[in-house]
Order: sequence, then structure tokens, then C-alpha cells
Amino acid sequence: MGSPMATKRRRSKKHSGRRARSKSQFDSLHTVPYITRQVPVYELASEELLELVENNAETVLEEIGIEFRDDPQALGLFQSAGCIVKEERVRFPRGMCREIIQNNAPSEFMQHARNPERSVKIGGNSMVLVPAYGSPFVRDLDNGRRYATLVDFENFTKLTWMSPFLHHSGGTLCEPVDIPVNKRHLDMIYSHLRWSDKPFMGSVTAPERAQDTVDMAKIVFGESFVSDNCVITSLINANSPMTFDSTMLGAARVYARNNQATVVSPFILAGAMSPVTIIGTCTQLFAEALAGMAFIQLTKPGAPVIFGTFSSSISMQSGAPTFGSPEPSMVLYLAAALARRLGVPFRSGGGLCASKVADAQAAYESANTLQTAMLAGVHFMLHTSGWLEGGLTMSYEKFILDTDQAGMIQVFLSGIDSSENGQAMSALREVGPGKHFLGCQHTQTNFESAFYRSAVADNNSFEQWQDDGGKDAETRANAIWKDMLNTYQPPPIEPGIDEELLAFVKNKKDSLPDANY
Amino acid sequence: MGSPMATKRRRSKKHSGRRARSKSQFDSLHTVPYITRQVPVYELASEELLELVENNAETVLEEIGIEFRDDPQALGLFQSAGCIVKEERVRFPRGMCREIIQNNAPSEFMQHARNPERSVKIGGNSMVLVPAYGSPFVRDLDNGRRYATLVDFENFTKLTWMSPFLHHSGGTLCEPVDIPVNKRHLDMIYSHLRWSDKPFMGSVTAPERAQDTVDMAKIVFGESFVSDNCVITSLINANSPMTFDSTMLGAARVYARNNQATVVSPFILAGAMSPVTIIGTCTQLFAEALAGMAFIQLTKPGAPVIFGTFSSSISMQSGAPTFGSPEPSMVLYLAAALARRLGVPFRSGGGLCASKVADAQAAYESANTLQTAMLAGVHFMLHTSGWLEGGLTMSYEKFILDTDQAGMIQVFLSGIDSSENGQAMSALREVGPGKHFLGCQHTQTNFESAFYRSAVADNNSFEQWQDDGGKDAETRANAIWKDMLNTYQPPPIEPGIDEELLAFVKNKKDSLPDANY
Repeated sequence: MGSPMATKRRRSKKHSGRRARSKSQFDSLHTVPYITRQVPVYELASEELLELVENNAETVLEEIGIEFRDDPQALGLFQSAGCIVKEERVRFPRGMCREIIQNNAPSEFMQHARNPERSVKIGGNSMVLVPAYGSPFVRDLDNGRRYATLVDFENFTKLTWMSPFLHHSGGTLCEPVDIPVNKRHLDMIYSHLRWSDKPFMGSVTAPERAQDTVDMAKIVFGESFVSDNCVITSLINANSPMTFDSTMLGAARVYARNNQATVVSPFILAGAMSPVTIIGTCTQLFAEALAGMAFIQLTKPGAPVIFGTFSSSISMQSGAPTFGSPEPSMVLYLAAALARRLGVPFRSGGGLCASKVADAQAAYESANTLQTAMLAGVHFMLHTSGWLEGGLTMSYEKFILDTDQAGMIQVFLSGIDSSENGQAMSALREVGPGKHFLGCQHTQTNFESAFYRSAVADNNSFEQWQDDGGKDAETRANAIWKDMLNTYQPPPIEPGIDEELLAFVKNKKDSLPDANY
Repeated sequence: MGSPMATKRRRSKKHSGRRARSKSQFDSLHTVPYITRQVPVYELASEELLELVENNAETVLEEIGIEFRDDPQALGLFQSAGCIVKEERVRFPRGMCREIIQNNAPSEFMQHARNPERSVKIGGNSMVLVPAYGSPFVRDLDNGRRYATLVDFENFTKLTWMSPFLHHSGGTLCEPVDIPVNKRHLDMIYSHLRWSDKPFMGSVTAPERAQDTVDMAKIVFGESFVSDNCVITSLINANSPMTFDSTMLGAARVYARNNQATVVSPFILAGAMSPVTIIGTCTQLFAEALAGMAFIQLTKPGAPVIFGTFSSSISMQSGAPTFGSPEPSMVLYLAAALARRLGVPFRSGGGLCASKVADAQAAYESANTLQTAMLAGVHFMLHTSGWLEGGLTMSYEKFILDTDQAGMIQVFLSGIDSSENGQAMSALREVGPGKHFLGCQHTQTNFESAFYRSAVADNNSFEQWQDDGGKDAETRANAIWKDMLNTYQPPPIEPGIDEELLAFVKNKKDSLPDANY
């Protein structure tokens, strides 16, 4: 396979080149704050098919309705807007949700980071890559699978901050189960604000925890800045099918009133929480998202909102969730197109998998969803890195492997260089038939930036790979995350702000008895 | 993650369901002969960009030219057609190759299998999945990496025949290095014709071996059928950059004169055999392919020809080939679009990777190329299953894992059901907010066909997976291929034909001294 010229170059360039790359790959100073898409999206469905889904979703909203549970305020809001409310079921006049959203919600917005160079644009032609969210367990090759702790959370905050291809610090990187449930959000928010300077996600497990998130952001960004700008994006899951619960509504209300962004995300395992068909699932999730986003816009017109979709299937044999298979990819392509037609940013995708380890299953499944999200036009990709086992486990090694894929997504979406240099006619003329391009002027000029360089892939010969210990990808990734944590240096923060944050956390913790709900 | 309802179903359905699937998954009787694409292709490049590449390729053909080495007959053919020939360099009037191809080559054709139910359409809206090709080594978990033998070749013939998602028996599934080079094609062709009844690829290592392939096909299909129909598709690699050698030209000539199909494929590791840019690489490979396909059409107007592209990058640090990275995907999308505009079938893609084992690297890289090929509009996908280590090794386990991905490609390309049943409004009405869909009428009706069912993925809980031995995907795949080979039953063949084939092989072998070139 390898040409003799390639072998010659290998000898002379190998070591210096590899070391140089290993530095730049994880040098977080040389990155773009978010991806700007330069290539078209893939449109799987025809306009007619999308109209069919939109019409059917309106029928669901009108005839079946959506339940808003234990939240009389939400019911009142919808009744005032013209909905028919019976008990907790809300039925919407056709087109009402769509109109409310289109008249009020921004099609794109900036989420500001405490380092202004890391602020992200969400919507339009941007793509923001965000680590995985919500796992109670972590896994690494040394210690296996175990409950996550705050140390793990802080580690993933640091790894995310150092990763040049992740643009956002994320939210519940893992559940720090060593901290009481009613206090852990304080430590998590502090970790995002202190050990990273990328944008972050807020707590949604109770309205008062959402308020704590906003208050801590005010310490960092200033009260008036927070009133006028988005500095937090938070995840509001629908309780599919066709239900929102008061916890999520309460948190969403706090963020919306404070002009902060929410991702309204139906969380669907098709076959259990939605019909077993693609159109049926899209219809339901779109109806749910429309109702949830209308709730946000009725609460605070103009508050940034993202249409989210988490959709997987279940095994019809075992009931277990499955990932990376074709049906959820099709749902994702359709949902992204529905978001474009509605005119709001879209969240979906990620390195989703059911595997228990970072093996071939994990990688096929993750790559299938990552490629789909890349081409579908996802704006905000939660779960980009680290996800194992249907989201139950955050893996240190898979985090590294997935982040490498994130880098490839960035390169792909940056498009094709059609300049004279990109056309390379000079190289073709210089080299001609039967020669090689390694030494030609054009190659020398473009050497550094020519191809994406994976920090994890082993492209060496079998013999070289064997001499290096015959390590698989998971084993190589293990060395990389350790090296990163060993060299981590926190981003600067004004000491006064840090003290104020720490005091806020301490006061809040002291004011409450520990509780695990 | 798993809902309680899902758990309930798991208990009642698990064992019978899994066993039933494991049977049907590899029951080659219930398959489609090839995929019929029901979804659009992804167009990465604009028309302007494609025109730029086409124009630049014509400039390469006109000003730089292509070398045809050690083949005066080819040079004479081009000279008669109006080319400028100096020594072995052929320069083409602008547009000449394109015109010859468009005036003569079919845009799609049937390759007939000895079992007519397995004949494949190549081109148009079809996609034909073909196993990997050409590795000198094989690998399995029990015996590791070793030189391939004829037994391995026969094993992969059998596995391919049994795989419902591979439509074609392929060619050099691995190199049977225990057989002399000048005789092994006889055993390989016999294996394809006897142990499979899917269509197959012929020998290209010498013109007389190509002729042996045609002669053996005539024994099976009859002489007049072979004259009038395509029963062999063979791989003709360009010797990039901008060179064809006499071996490949000689084999191509034999197939074309016999009206059999050839895949004219530039084999490019960008950076070594082509410029380091996407447009530069596409320009060169398109020029090479145009020249090669024009050679076929000048040799035998109307002979089926496929525009092939094998394009990867090299590591600019080590010179090693790399796979699954964004640049080769972009090249693939462009080349597919160029083929559509030219009007010929297109070959590219596959489960390409540089990894030495079927680990996460192998799977990410393979999935990235498989997804790209699926969406680009590849018609003939060589290397779908089994490829490791840049093609040096055919892996039994990866063969199983990749073939599972092939099944997912088939489901994705079969498109979206927008019928009343697909819309599933009855399910949404029956279930309503807060309930689950597992028991509803619509789910019961669509239970069997709802979602793609992987034979390899483990979607069970961590605890269940651990109880089952905590096996990774590669280990699970090991059990599957052994089970397949244990249950293999050859397809029927007329005894007279089998005898004739065996006599042909014996006579040919006896007539030649062993040679390893």
C-alpha cells in the first residue's frame, strides 16, 4: 500500500511531526469558537413529506392535545392564548403554536461565554459541539465502571475545555453522586464557570436550582448583561408521549423569564414512547416540540429556544434502547428539516451507542449518528463525546475517541477550497504521469494544513503497531486523557469573582439540609 | 433509560425473538438481490464546482496527458481516435473522452448471476454491496494475523453467499498465497462459481487469466449468453498518477472484447499519488477515469464500464495511508457527482480503515466511509465487509460487523413509508399522552418489520452483558462467523457443469509450470 516515497518521508519526518501535532491537537488556544457550515445539508425528505408531518402534528395538537402536568400556570397561559384546556390536557387551534414561535423566537442567537472569544452562535449556519450529558456512571480502563463523583465531573470539565473540537462545556457531564442531589448543581455550575471558560448549560432538576444557575451566572457576567444576553442554555425534556411535567416546566419558566435559552427536547425511544414508524415518531415529536416552544414564547416572547430531538428505537425483542441504526437517523434528518422550515435552531445527534465499552459497536453506532447530525444541519449537538451504554456511562476513553470525530466534522463542514491553490493545477503540471507528489512545491506549501490529523488513530504498519505494544484504540485513548489532565492549566478568573462564586455555593449549601431528590 | 413497559416485554419476548432473528439474519433466501435507492443522494458540491473540476480534468487530458505503458495497441487506438501520442504519452482533444463515453457506455446494466434471482443492476438507482478485495493476510481472533490460503478464500466465498446484505460474491476476497500466482485465479473463480450463486469478479493479473475467467463463465452460462450479457465485473486500477500499465490494459481489453464489465479505478493515496487538495485530487482521478473508460469504449463500443474511485489520504507525518477522514469523504461525494453528470455507474466506498484489529478505530473509520458511500450514490461498493489495515488484511470478525452495517444501509436507502400505516395516526390516537405504545394495535401489526435488527450489537443492560461474559463486538462476531460456516450448505449446481469446471481448472493447471508472478 505505502509507496516507497512515503516510506522515505516517514523516516525523516515521523517523530518531529507527531510530537508537533500531539501538542496542537489539544492546545485549546488555536481553535474556532464554533463551526461555520460551508456545505449544504442533506435533505432526506421531500417538501410534500415534510408538509404531511407538519399537518399531522397540527392534528395531534388540535385533536389529541398535550398534557401539562401539575402546572396550573401553564394551563392558564395556554387558555388565555386560545387553547381548549380540559383538566391537564391542552388542545391547540391549528397553526397556533407555529405562529407564536415564528412571531417571537429568534432563528439564531449568541450564547456568551465568560471568555468572549469562546461565545457561540446557535442557529443559522453554525454548529456547536457539546459533550455528553446526564450519566450516573463513569468508566475508564483503569478502574472500570463506577458511580460518578465530583472529581469525575471536574475532570470532564477540564477535558472539554482542553478539547479544541468541543465548543461548549455542556451541562451534567456526569452525575456527581457523591454530592447530595439538592446541592450538586452548585458544584457543577461552579466547575463549568471556574475550570472552563466555554459556555455552559444550567440545572433543570428544580426551578430554584435553575434560579441558582442564573444567579451564579450574574456573578460572573454581571446582572444587566445577563438580563440582555443569553449566557446559559438548558435542556428541557418532554415526558413523551405528549406530556410535560412540572419540574421541567418550572425550570424552563425560570430560564425563559431570565431571557436564557432552553432546548425543548422530546426524549423518544420509538416503539415505546412513540409509534414504531418514522413519520409517526416525527409527527409526535414535532407536536411536542411545538407545544413546548410555544410555552416558552408565551412565557417570555423572544426568549431563545432550540427545537431538540433525542430519538432512538427500542429492540422489539428485548425492549432495550438501540442506537446508530437507520430509523433514528431518518427521524433526525426529518426533524432537522422541520426545524429549518419553522425557523428555529435545532439540537440532536451525538456519539450515541448502546455498547458497554468503547469497542467497534460503540464506534459504528456513534459514527452513524455523528455523520447524520453533521449532514442534517444540527446546530447544537449534545452528547458529542463520551457517551456509552445508552447514556448511563460517561467514558474517559470514548470521550477522547469521539472528540477526534468532532475534529473531522469541523473539517468536513468547513468545505472545499476552490482557489487556485485548491485546484492544484501547478502540482499536476509539475509532477506529471508516473511520479509522486511528496516533494513538489505545492505539497511543500500545503504540508501543514493538508489533511485532518487524528490524535488517536494508529496508521502505522502492522509491525510498527505491534512493536508499539499492539494497542487498540481504547488503550491509546487512555494515555491521551491522562496526559491531558496532567497538563491541564485552568483558565484565568478574577479572584473577586471566584470568591463570590465560592461564597454563593457555600451559603446555599449551608442554608439547606442535604436531600437526595 | 429503559421504560418499565420495555422491561416487561423483554421478559416475555426475548428468547424466542432473538433466536428467530438470528436465523433470518443469515438466511440468504430472504433477501433482495440489490438495493433500490428510494432516497436522494447528498450533493456536496455546487454545479459550478463540478464544472470547474470537469474543465480542469480536460486541461489535464489535453496538456499533460496520460501514459499508457508497454501497450502499443492502446497508443494506436488513441492515435486513430484523434489523440496526440508522443512516446507513451497520450494527449486528448478537449471533450473527446467524455463524448466517446457518453455516446457508447451504458448508464446502467445487469450483471447476471448463475442464479437468476441474484442478478444485480449496476447503475441508476441501484446499489450493489460487495465484500473486500485483495488482501494477502487474513485475521481472526483465534489464530491472529496470517497469510491467507485457499481455505480462507472459500470461507469468505461462503460467508458472502450466506450474508443477506451482500449482493455480490466479489473478486479476490483474499489472496490464496498457498497456490502459485499463475494458477490461483482458477481456484478463486471456481470458488465463486461453485460455493456461491451470486455474481462475481474476474482475474486481472494477466490477459490470459482474464480469458480463463471468461472461459469458465462460458461453461456456467453458455457461450452465447456470455457474448450478449454481462456475467463478470472486473477491477482495472489506474497506476496513478496519470498512468495505465499493460497488465491492467491487457486484462481490460479481454473483458471489453467479451462484452464484460470493467471498473476503471484510479487508486489514489492523496498527497503521494495526487495533490494534497480535494479539487486537485478529483481533477486528476477524473482525468484518469475518463481516459481509462474511453480506452474501454474504443476497444469495444458499448461494453459496460464503471467509473471507480479509491481515494484515501496519507499522513503527512509518516506517509502512512489514513482512512475515514473528512477529505477522502469529500473526494468521494464529488466523484459520485461527476459520475452522475457523465452518465456512468460509480464505484467507491467500503468499510475502509487503517486499524490492525476490529476495534473502535476500525469502526469509526469504516462507518464514516460507509455512510459517505451510502449518501453519495455509489452503485457498486467494493470493500463493504472485512477490510482491515489499509486492505492488507481480511478479518473474519470485521466481515461480520461490516455486513451488519450493510444491512443498515439497505434499510436507510429503502426510504420512508408515508402510507396511512406509516403515518401511524391511529397509534397516536389510541395511546395518547403519558401512555406507552408497546401494546397498541399499530405496534402489534408492525412488530416484525419495525426496526433494523442487528445480529451483532449488544443492547442489553450492563448487568446482563456482564453475565453473558462481558464480550466486546469483535468477540461476539467471532461466534457468528463460526456458526455460519458450520451451517453452510452450498447452492445447487448441475453436476455436469461442476465436472466441466473442475476439468477446466485441472487442464489449465497441468498445462503450466508453477510460477509466482
